[in-house]
Amino acid sequence: MHLETETWTDVADAETDLALLPVGSTEQHGPHAPLGTDTLDAEAVADAAAEQYDDPVVVAPAIPVGIAEEHREFSGTLWTTESTFRSYVRDVVGSLASHGWDRVVVVNGHGGNIAALREVTTRIVRHDDAYAVPFTWFDEVDEHTSEMGHAGPLETSLLRHANPETVHEDRLEEAADGSSDRWGDWQGRVNLAVDSHEFTENGVVGDPRESSADLGEELLDLSAAALCKLLDAVRERDPQARIDG
Amino acid sequence: MHLETETWTDVADAETDLALLPVGSTEQHGPHAPLGTDTLDAEAVADAAAEQYDDPVVVAPAIPVGIAEEHREFSGTLWTTESTFRSYVRDVVGSLASHGWDRVVVVNGHGGNIAALREVTTRIVRHDDAYAVPFTWFDEVDEHTSEMGHAGPLETSLLRHANPETVHEDRLEEAADGSSDRWGDWQGRVNLAVDSHEFTENGVVGDPRESSADLGEELLDLSAAALCKLLDAVRERDPQARIDG
Amino acid sequence: MHLETETWTDVADAETDLALLPVGSTEQHGPHAPLGTDTLDAEAVADAAAEQYDDPVVVAPAIPVGIAEEHREFSGTLWTTESTFRSYVRDVVGSLASHGWDRVVVVNGHGGNIAALREVTTRIVRHDDAYAVPFTWFDEVDEHTSEMGHAGPLETSLLRHANPETVHEDRLEEAADGSSDRWGDWQGRVNLAVDSHEFTENGVVGDPRESSADLGEELLDLSAAALCKLLDAVRERDPQARIDG
Amino acid sequence: MHLETETWTDVADAETDLALLPVGSTEQHGPHAPLGTDTLDAEAVADAAAEQYDDPVVVAPAIPVGIAEEHREFSGTLWTTESTFRSYVRDVVGSLASHGWDRVVVVNGHGGNIAALREVTTRIVRHDDAYAVPFTWFDEVDEHTSEMGHAGPLETSLLRHANPETVHEDRLEEAADGSSDRWGDWQGRVNLAVDSHEFTENGVVGDPRESSADLGEELLDLSAAALCKLLDAVRERDPQARIDG
Amino acid sequence: MHLETETWTDVADAETDLALLPVGSTEQHGPHAPLGTDTLDAEAVADAAAEQYDDPVVVAPAIPVGIAEEHREFSGTLWTTESTFRSYVRDVVGSLASHGWDRVVVVNGHGGNIAALREVTTRIVRHDDAYAVPFTWFDEVDEHTSEMGHAGPLETSLLRHANPETVHEDRLEEAADGSSDRWGDWQGRVNLAVDSHEFTENGVVGDPRESSADLGEELLDLSAAALCKLLDAVRERDPQARIDG
Amino acid sequence: MHLETETWTDVADAETDLALLPVGSTEQHGPHAPLGTDTLDAEAVADAAAEQYDDPVVVAPAIPVGIAEEHREFSGTLWTTESTFRSYVRDVVGSLASHGWDRVVVVNGHGGNIAALREVTTRIVRHDDAYAVPFTWFDEVDEHTSEMGHAGPLETSLLRHANPETVHEDRLEEAADGSSDRWGDWQGRVNLAVDSHEFTENGVVGDPRESSADLGEELLDLSAAALCKLLDAVRERDPQARIDG
Repeated sequence: MHLETETWTDVADAETDLALLPVGSTEQHGPHAPLGTDTLDAEAVADAAAEQYDDPVVVAPAIPVGIAEEHREFSGTLWTTESTFRSYVRDVVGSLASHGWDRVVVVNGHGGNIAALREVTTRIVRHDDAYAVPFTWFDEVDEHTSEMGHAGPLETSLLRHANPETVHEDRLEEAADGSSDRWGDWQGRVNLAVDSHEFTENGVVGDPRESSADLGEELLDLSAAALCKLLDAVRERDPQARIDG
Repeated sequence: MHLETETWTDVADAETDLALLPVGSTEQHGPHAPLGTDTLDAEAVADAAAEQYDDPVVVAPAIPVGIAEEHREFSGTLWTTESTFRSYVRDVVGSLASHGWDRVVVVNGHGGNIAALREVTTRIVRHDDAYAVPFTWFDEVDEHTSEMGHAGPLETSLLRHANPETVHEDRLEEAADGSSDRWGDWQGRVNLAVDSHEFTENGVVGDPRESSADLGEELLDLSAAALCKLLDAVRERDPQARIDG
Repeated sequence: MHLETETWTDVADAETDLALLPVGSTEQHGPHAPLGTDTLDAEAVADAAAEQYDDPVVVAPAIPVGIAEEHREFSGTLWTTESTFRSYVRDVVGSLASHGWDRVVVVNGHGGNIAALREVTTRIVRHDDAYAVPFTWFDEVDEHTSEMGHAGPLETSLLRHANPETVHEDRLEEAADGSSDRWGDWQGRVNLAVDSHEFTENGVVGDPRESSADLGEELLDLSAAALCKLLDAVRERDPQARIDG
Repeated sequence: MHLETETWTDVADAETDLALLPVGSTEQHGPHAPLGTDTLDAEAVADAAAEQYDDPVVVAPAIPVGIAEEHREFSGTLWTTESTFRSYVRDVVGSLASHGWDRVVVVNGHGGNIAALREVTTRIVRHDDAYAVPFTWFDEVDEHTSEMGHAGPLETSLLRHANPETVHEDRLEEAADGSSDRWGDWQGRVNLAVDSHEFTENGVVGDPRESSADLGEELLDLSAAALCKLLDAVRERDPQARIDG
Repeated sequence: MHLETETWTDVADAETDLALLPVGSTEQHGPHAPLGTDTLDAEAVADAAAEQYDDPVVVAPAIPVGIAEEHREFSGTLWTTESTFRSYVRDVVGSLASHGWDRVVVVNGHGGNIAALREVTTRIVRHDDAYAVPFTWFDEVDEHTSEMGHAGPLETSLLRHANPETVHEDRLEEAADGSSDRWGDWQGRVNLAVDSHEFTENGVVGDPRESSADLGEELLDLSAAALCKLLDAVRERDPQARIDG
Repeated sequence: MHLETETWTDVADAETDLALLPVGSTEQHGPHAPLGTDTLDAEAVADAAAEQYDDPVVVAPAIPVGIAEEHREFSGTLWTTESTFRSYVRDVVGSLASHGWDRVVVVNGHGGNIAALREVTTRIVRHDDAYAVPFTWFDEVDEHTSEMGHAGPLETSLLRHANPETVHEDRLEEAADGSSDRWGDWQGRVNLAVDSHEFTENGVVGDPRESSADLGEELLDLSAAALCKLLDAVRERDPQARIDG
């Protein structure tokens, strides 16, 4: 039940308190993948889960610009401050909740959004009239999670499965050539870099040549299944419970 | 040149300082038109103008949630505070400008956004490193503008032309039945109402039965042409000029 | 019942829930009219209405500085940010309401304040314990409204009637010479200018030679009568009502 | 040179960098003195000093609502938050400075504004392009300062001299009857009270029967003379100087 | 009962609603006294009072950085904006109150914090669920208060008694040599200076040679006794009381 | 070179651009460890590193209250909002940098601060005149990091070595009895809990019986050594560098 294409009269009849809010980013994803990768991937996962889930789930339109200043040196990257982003998410979750959809999973496609989403959903649970949690799809694909990188095999694969026309497969060699093998520039466990141009030439981390549409399909299945399980848990969660009570 | 589907390397080569930022809303549009009407219409106009324009124009992804608390009593309506909305737009325009696209037209599909967009673009011109103006498509369709309403003939027509699958044509009678003939509840020129449920039963203002795909095509042509002329003017504008200088 | 000159014990006895809050601006009004024009005019209208109205009405002191950065290139213009202005108005309305005067009309004399007043009064109605609406006097003078301009016939006439000593009648020719015939610099319905020095040499829009004290008296009568009618409506308004309920 | 009644063309010719910004309050002043006492008194002092001073001085319109929540239990009292008040003052001083009047004395009539004015003028001096200091008139009347109170002999006297029509002389006995002899409710040097109704029955502190128009004239002379001396000092001040260099 | 060194289980059993929150500053205190003087002194007074008081009192860890931008030209001085400082204090008082310790005395060691603490504790009393007052130790030492200065006899004496190892007694002559005899640079009762380097060469105001450990002991006794009396008063205070009943 | 106990004249002579800012928390650490555990541990690590480092390093006083609302149900826990905390840290780092110590490592002892410190230090590097990174001591103790928990073996060990008087060793059994074996309540990789009382009875995660003073010494050595290496790297870092030169 996608809000963008439904009428208010139809969604008013929906019997559910579950909603998904896809959140992406518009930022460089190397020479081979589109700036909208994170949004497209988040939407793909949210759509798949909403379709598979047994009961109706409201799907809000995706928030297309997130926290991506780290990629500012790469053309086309858009960003908001963390504070603006958190306010935007909080307001949208609040309006979803006002209609009775007060169990919200924020379906996230961008690593840079994770900390801010954790902060804002926690604040919502404690202080607003809603229960919300963030779900980042590439953290929920079993052992594949460790291969994440940036514009690397995972993101590229999901695009090749769900939005193949957006990937320049003929540039995968070029993408690999200018890539870095790790995110950041580390001293112990401290990342000395604040922007991605400090450690990757073309914006890529990881090897996108290892991507495939088949892997993309598997990733979509895994993450959509994980999201469905999360919806079950979110529906049942008592935010007031204490372990000894 | 849509950022969502282009790579950073391709947009880096674009020789332009012009960008379009579509801004919509997710809000009730009667029983016949989708909650995403304003976003879909803004995107349609931005796309048409970018395609027609002689030189390349960057098109940012549409901002899907705007200032729509006035429709809060109708299910599915999403909104942010005015302050959050302005910050979000300002941040996005600032990041567009950082890449050299510092002449930005915000292509707007929602009446409730107009005042906030005027405020924020003016602040950008005066205090940031960019020139930005808002363009609201239904204000730029010649004499048709006066028939605007809400979910009325204009918006419905543009949908029927550009996104016909989203309109329930079989509900136009029902839509007209519960509609109001004016926006607001007026004493003189003061609107006593703050929310739309105070003056319309089903959210509609105007008569959507007067819509047609043909009218939609005409509206798209008119507004896209007006937007192209505006791009010419924006490209040439000297924000520092004074009349006597 | 003007707060500035009444004692708290006298206003405590007033049996009313109606208050007027005049809001002006300190900004250039050409070579012939004072920087305080908007404040003086707003006060004149508020005073006239309070006097004519059948029941007691509290009149707060006028807020003298508003949103006028657009005139910053003309000496003597003062302004606050939109955000500061809205906070100031909201706080003052809130304190009025705390004393039981929770039906407030903001009597405005400046076009630049209109959008911000609409935003803040709407927020007050939805989220605070008060009902407030903005009233801009020159929008409520029948067909004369179309002649508004800036420091033009309307504002100058009201001054010549209510505060004649502040107008330099011997400079009306000079004022007309350097004036513009329209507010803004337009491409279609988009104003490309953000500041008034971009389109007027001496700050005037319209022809102040068409002003007269007689016209001023008429304008005062019209706007005060409109304001009295609005007070009736505001007193009766149920902010919670829905059309179908 | 009062901005409210001057034209922009006339003030543009003024050769000065000095400005006065009167700041008052709208708050209870007992049964005998008007809610606008602090504004009226601040204006009287600013006017007298501007007139006496050898060189031209710009006088801004008075800010009529300040920090007065402490009187909220007395009808008619208006207030803003400290934060809003500081922003309002900072914005106005900033716009004065933009026209070359960047040596600003804030002429204050209300004790509750003192701390906030000190904070904001200090911030202006350190971080903006202006030099500003607050001047509170009743702190600058020699040995009389110690008799200040609230709506007591000093404020009442200045009103009786400068705005005699606003004082109910026939209520001075009543005012004295319900008055307190000290501001606050003290344990050591800590005031346990946050609001004035905690320690005064009718809002008065001190004995207004000791007021007179003659005393008012003396107070006006003293404070205006002190303000003129301050203007001399402000004109000469080098904000960057250090004692040893 | 110091929170820093107690366990949560032990403080959970405490039967009290009283808490002390020491607030200091890290700022220059001349060549002889440490940058942490204000924090050390505030802690000493809070500790002494908590020990002497008949009933248990919770002592929060000291806030070590306050409002000290005025000393920015002297190395090692740290500061926050007034706004940040107020928020920090308000949040901490709020969390103290959440555990039932909702009668809080902020024990302050720095003159620059006084106005901000008055503002924020007043806001807390009016709008939060706690009663809080600020107590500045050197204002509560009888006639000694008048000798305060900065890094002068009072502060140095208290250090020499409570933290003698932090004072360089061999530099007292040097400290006196570069000191000023008054805080500020005055025209009437207006301080024209915003920073301390404008009126003191080495940061000292007053003569630290007049300090002694014995005087320090007396000061500690006086201020701790005053604080104990204040705790009695704070425990009994009814924030809602009005004088007339 | 600890600012708290040094004079400004002594630190002014220090030849270094390195500073450490310890950041802790006041929050429950089970029945056996003090509420100030995180502050004490952060100070211990900062002190050890400053002492071992070859060149002088400025050590600021520890910020004692951080982001700990998650423990709000356990008595004695103090917290600020994330926004207040970030502002406080940013202001302090800014004042450190103003004295030439513009290479700052924030030495953190609390997991709940990590995301906020990452956000604020990144903002400082990009937009202020300083380079700052966060260092969390228990992330830098080799393979021990995985045993972290809360009030578990690592934190307790470091206390037993550096502040043994603060640990109730006789309560370690009790602490273990009510502890949880994992932080959070998980569905996949989403933590459904927002507060610690949802998953631990007495606030402990992990088994503090596995702590020892010897392990504490090892942890201190490891983390101090890691911090010294980081200081080397921070001193050399060019924040403007890009990988491709």
